[in-house]
Amino acid sequence: MAVRAAVAGASGYAGGEVLRLLLAHPEVEIGALTGNSNAGQRLGALQPHLLPLADRVLAETTAEALAGHDVVFLALPHGQSAAVAEQLGPDVLVIDMGADFRLRDPADWVRFYGSEHAGTWPYGLPELPGARARLAGSRRIAVPGCYPTAVSLALFPAYAAQLAEPEAVIVAASGTSGAGKAPKPHLLGSEVMGSMSPYGVGGGHRHTPEMIQNLSEVAGRRVAVSFTPTLAPMSRGILATCSAAALAGVTADSVRAAYEKAYADEPYVRLLPEGQWPATAAVHGSNAVQVQVAYDESVGRIIAISAIDNLTKGTAGGAVQSMNIALGLDETTGLSTIGVAP
Amino acid sequence: MAVRAAVAGASGYAGGEVLRLLLAHPEVEIGALTGNSNAGQRLGALQPHLLPLADRVLAETTAEALAGHDVVFLALPHGQSAAVAEQLGPDVLVIDMGADFRLRDPADWVRFYGSEHAGTWPYGLPELPGARARLAGSRRIAVPGCYPTAVSLALFPAYAAQLAEPEAVIVAASGTSGAGKAPKPHLLGSEVMGSMSPYGVGGGHRHTPEMIQNLSEVAGRRVAVSFTPTLAPMSRGILATCSAAALAGVTADSVRAAYEKAYADEPYVRLLPEGQWPATAAVHGSNAVQVQVAYDESVGRIIAISAIDNLTKGTAGGAVQSMNIALGLDETTGLSTIGVAP
Amino acid sequence: MAVRAAVAGASGYAGGEVLRLLLAHPEVEIGALTGNSNAGQRLGALQPHLLPLADRVLAETTAEALAGHDVVFLALPHGQSAAVAEQLGPDVLVIDMGADFRLRDPADWVRFYGSEHAGTWPYGLPELPGARARLAGSRRIAVPGCYPTAVSLALFPAYAAQLAEPEAVIVAASGTSGAGKAPKPHLLGSEVMGSMSPYGVGGGHRHTPEMIQNLSEVAGRRVAVSFTPTLAPMSRGILATCSAAALAGVTADSVRAAYEKAYADEPYVRLLPEGQWPATAAVHGSNAVQVQVAYDESVGRIIAISAIDNLTKGTAGGAVQSMNIALGLDETTGLSTIGVAP
Amino acid sequence: MAVRAAVAGASGYAGGEVLRLLLAHPEVEIGALTGNSNAGQRLGALQPHLLPLADRVLAETTAEALAGHDVVFLALPHGQSAAVAEQLGPDVLVIDMGADFRLRDPADWVRFYGSEHAGTWPYGLPELPGARARLAGSRRIAVPGCYPTAVSLALFPAYAAQLAEPEAVIVAASGTSGAGKAPKPHLLGSEVMGSMSPYGVGGGHRHTPEMIQNLSEVAGRRVAVSFTPTLAPMSRGILATCSAAALAGVTADSVRAAYEKAYADEPYVRLLPEGQWPATAAVHGSNAVQVQVAYDESVGRIIAISAIDNLTKGTAGGAVQSMNIALGLDETTGLSTIGVAP
Repeated sequence: MAVRAAVAGASGYAGGEVLRLLLAHPEVEIGALTGNSNAGQRLGALQPHLLPLADRVLAETTAEALAGHDVVFLALPHGQSAAVAEQLGPDVLVIDMGADFRLRDPADWVRFYGSEHAGTWPYGLPELPGARARLAGSRRIAVPGCYPTAVSLALFPAYAAQLAEPEAVIVAASGTSGAGKAPKPHLLGSEVMGSMSPYGVGGGHRHTPEMIQNLSEVAGRRVAVSFTPTLAPMSRGILATCSAAALAGVTADSVRAAYEKAYADEPYVRLLPEGQWPATAAVHGSNAVQVQVAYDESVGRIIAISAIDNLTKGTAGGAVQSMNIALGLDETTGLSTIGVAP
Repeated sequence: MAVRAAVAGASGYAGGEVLRLLLAHPEVEIGALTGNSNAGQRLGALQPHLLPLADRVLAETTAEALAGHDVVFLALPHGQSAAVAEQLGPDVLVIDMGADFRLRDPADWVRFYGSEHAGTWPYGLPELPGARARLAGSRRIAVPGCYPTAVSLALFPAYAAQLAEPEAVIVAASGTSGAGKAPKPHLLGSEVMGSMSPYGVGGGHRHTPEMIQNLSEVAGRRVAVSFTPTLAPMSRGILATCSAAALAGVTADSVRAAYEKAYADEPYVRLLPEGQWPATAAVHGSNAVQVQVAYDESVGRIIAISAIDNLTKGTAGGAVQSMNIALGLDETTGLSTIGVAP
Repeated sequence: MAVRAAVAGASGYAGGEVLRLLLAHPEVEIGALTGNSNAGQRLGALQPHLLPLADRVLAETTAEALAGHDVVFLALPHGQSAAVAEQLGPDVLVIDMGADFRLRDPADWVRFYGSEHAGTWPYGLPELPGARARLAGSRRIAVPGCYPTAVSLALFPAYAAQLAEPEAVIVAASGTSGAGKAPKPHLLGSEVMGSMSPYGVGGGHRHTPEMIQNLSEVAGRRVAVSFTPTLAPMSRGILATCSAAALAGVTADSVRAAYEKAYADEPYVRLLPEGQWPATAAVHGSNAVQVQVAYDESVGRIIAISAIDNLTKGTAGGAVQSMNIALGLDETTGLSTIGVAP
Repeated sequence: MAVRAAVAGASGYAGGEVLRLLLAHPEVEIGALTGNSNAGQRLGALQPHLLPLADRVLAETTAEALAGHDVVFLALPHGQSAAVAEQLGPDVLVIDMGADFRLRDPADWVRFYGSEHAGTWPYGLPELPGARARLAGSRRIAVPGCYPTAVSLALFPAYAAQLAEPEAVIVAASGTSGAGKAPKPHLLGSEVMGSMSPYGVGGGHRHTPEMIQNLSEVAGRRVAVSFTPTLAPMSRGILATCSAAALAGVTADSVRAAYEKAYADEPYVRLLPEGQWPATAAVHGSNAVQVQVAYDESVGRIIAISAIDNLTKGTAGGAVQSMNIALGLDETTGLSTIGVAP
């Protein structure tokens, strides 16, 4: 019997992407689609790429509209998920693609988001040590942020194997869809095409505490993170360039071995052959992660680089992957590792 | 029992795209992959987006390598398909994604391609009147060119309903993947980004006789075509803007009715609701076609516009769709109408 | 003594571009800069590429702010120029970069813009026959629309030489800056990159009557225009692909001769050598126009193609060129024919 | 009397850019233009954006062709400049835009370039301490690499003021023109658009020793550099994100003060107001450099970011700026700080 799924916030980029994936998921039947400012509109006008759903009309995001589903995906602005989730029963699998339930330390939440902390749900990055066990059977899942997904997968093997100093320097480039669909002047095509620019420099980006949380847990001690995000002239994709000083005794071989071990059996993470480097185009539209790592002897640093599709593995694909685990389905059901390139 | 498929020319864009689609096709098992200059290389180095095939190694394109398959896709340079096809038995389904077997009139071939005509195979554009019957059970299929696919689907309903003068004016914009993977200076990213430019102006583009062939057959008389292709700063997609003078008595309603009738039951062609216009992004990576039509009363012209993905519906998706018909499978098996957007 | 120039609407794309050009103009001194919603802001925050003006602050657009200048450039939303112009004396050169004073027939204005017609000013496309005489000494200039600039320069030689039937079919691709800086969802980088799409199809685009006006005047009879604009994934540039049936007796040579004659002495229009085609990248940031023409014997059509920078020759460069003429300066003062490429 | 300048390698991107700038330089007259594989071709076919030079024909790169000029710009492949320079007299100003004469330590040259070291010429980055004195009157100039220009200008104030640990971590994104005009598969538009990817990871990029040389000289001790370049989907521009651990006692104020002091009187480097960040689009086609710096207290790092146009300030603009100094002209003659945006 099909899993019946609703999507709250179906007109935005995260909502559209989860629908794109659910349409290809053999066990899921798509139920209610809701929006707020766009309620009453045809989905075909809002998400013209989702042809099979073109004639569906968005309902308002209410408890009634979302009732009667096995899974509810929340693609809502920060701070709005808790109120909706409260109205859904404990047996409904609620998957929050926003930030509300990712952070464990309420102080982090308050500092970076400025409102009251809603709580902490099991964290939907299955590749992290211990994560699958916490997700199995869970009925609440917090989907990781796109940058923390890319960064954690690039760096955690180095920390899990105790190879690196607890100070990571990260510069990541993201496609513009990561900034959402609300129109703002600096996101206009005219401004974005032909331009690279940073933002949230100096520790202010909201994804920073989430990276620290993930890497610190793996390392067993607090890892400091210097994170600089940049906006790149492309719609999708994150390239995360991460580095940390190597601990004494580390060699190129020991680094390689740690990554090979970490990703030997992962269905979505591909440690590339030596000499080949990640490219966001190769994972466009797919749940795959390309990872490569090098040891720069001249400066004693491990450089780990990952490429993901920010909307797929970085948001909606990660959500579906975690849904599969929570529901006891094969983890890879309906989720491709094949990119749309060139 | 699975259909066993080989791809000759697996390192190029057409070859890569057909592999992307076959990987998602539930009835197909991927057999031999061949190349020429790239024989001996890992596919992962050539097509890094095709993760499940990363460790496959390209063989040379020989009769031996291609033997023992149910279907062989040819993604070869123009003029090379006949020699390969001859060596494959009559029971093997041979699908040529090149131009060699598209044209019926040998004089057209000689004029536009400058070599001896190899022959004519059933034409793989199922949406054209009568096409499906010719494809069913066939063991040789000529896949249409990308521009003729977009243009024929934009215009044929107007000609089938006898609404238009037999002189069409077409301006189409294509992504750069249509020009292939062989590196040439004018295809460099530095040259392409931020630039629109025409080529093959004045009737010289090789896809022109194919458009004339398709539209003339539907119209029942010779349709002249003025075709100007342009190169657009994007990897994929064709937007074809087509127009023709309306015959006497034509109205906006009769035009709309003709298109609604033509596409009422087509699984891949979507006549958009009035007021919505095609966009290549909406069909990125999908086999869908977006079509819209208008009647400009002030000049008495029908303007029909289509958007396709040049590599999917315009090449490899069209090939798989025709394969499904030829093999008696459901025509839509393994072929999505869902685009990867934004 | 320097010409003192003010710019009303300095925060938008047209305003920014005219400032970019005026900064390089040896006879001009930049005076007041005004805006409405952005009044009070530093120009460095709004137009960060205009480094020498970074610390200038925008005033409100009032008669007082604009008083005391020799030239006032209006880069205002449609319908707002007349009220401002009225308050400026008859000796001030007022150059309207909006649409308000372009059309001669009030009925055209009412039909396409829906408001009362403000009047008609000398039309700032110097290359049209007779235009320079009308601009010399004028104190009011209507700058042409970007599409009409590209289209008129592509086609007028064919009509001036009586070579073409009075029915032109035009498909033009524009960069997104032509749509302005006001943020709208369909202009987001995420939507625009990788996508081509048409708009205003079927005769509805407001630049259509302006094209008809220009071509009809040159032809000496009414020329009908089928115009389809498309949005291309680039910031700047227009590529206009224009065609019309040739009159009897026309040959490739007579077409070429007409264009050579028309553009023999034009400082900004370059008729390319045969075999070379326009590209928008080649005129990026410059006032140059690339034109090429072909005669397609197989369909009896003249195909004329032009490339301009929509913001330079298509808006602000055309404005400065006309200013030079009006003020009796050398027409090319401060205006480059050199593009920024690649 | 005009300075007569020749350009060897006029068909490539660096050669084209220096011509673009020299065309706007009031003191320069353009003399011989040479190429190798393109000798005999019209420049209009190779550099269609340089309209005033369209009918110039490339000569072969020989001593005869380059004789009789005051300045010769060399835009040649690495390793070819010395042989040409030897044939030019000591009174001719020879400006090498390649790498041959940048490095002081022959061992660095051998390690990174694999050939014999040609020597060391005065280094053309005027903003570095002491550089202008070395350039004044010089008749040999080595133009810096594009990445070292961006990185040195981002970081040197921190090292000059002794604020940072001698270990810098740099991730830079470059437009594709930095990779040159020779067609290679990974530089095709189809591959580049929509993709971010790193290269030369782990200390292997040839610009690394040049960065070390510059920063070490300023710091007065060896500065180690971890440098990761990435290829961005744009034609032009470098965004360099640089960081280093702050020394004890450093504060946000002391960092800001050091940068304000360093750039108070520089004509081309703009330290942005606090809160505004560099964007490559803002310096497109200009010789300007945007710099911003932050102190991230949470990790104790200084983060300095610069944006340049890799072809202008990063290559040809830097070359012209140094030429001006060497010839005793005003340093800013013919060189704009105004970008072409959007």
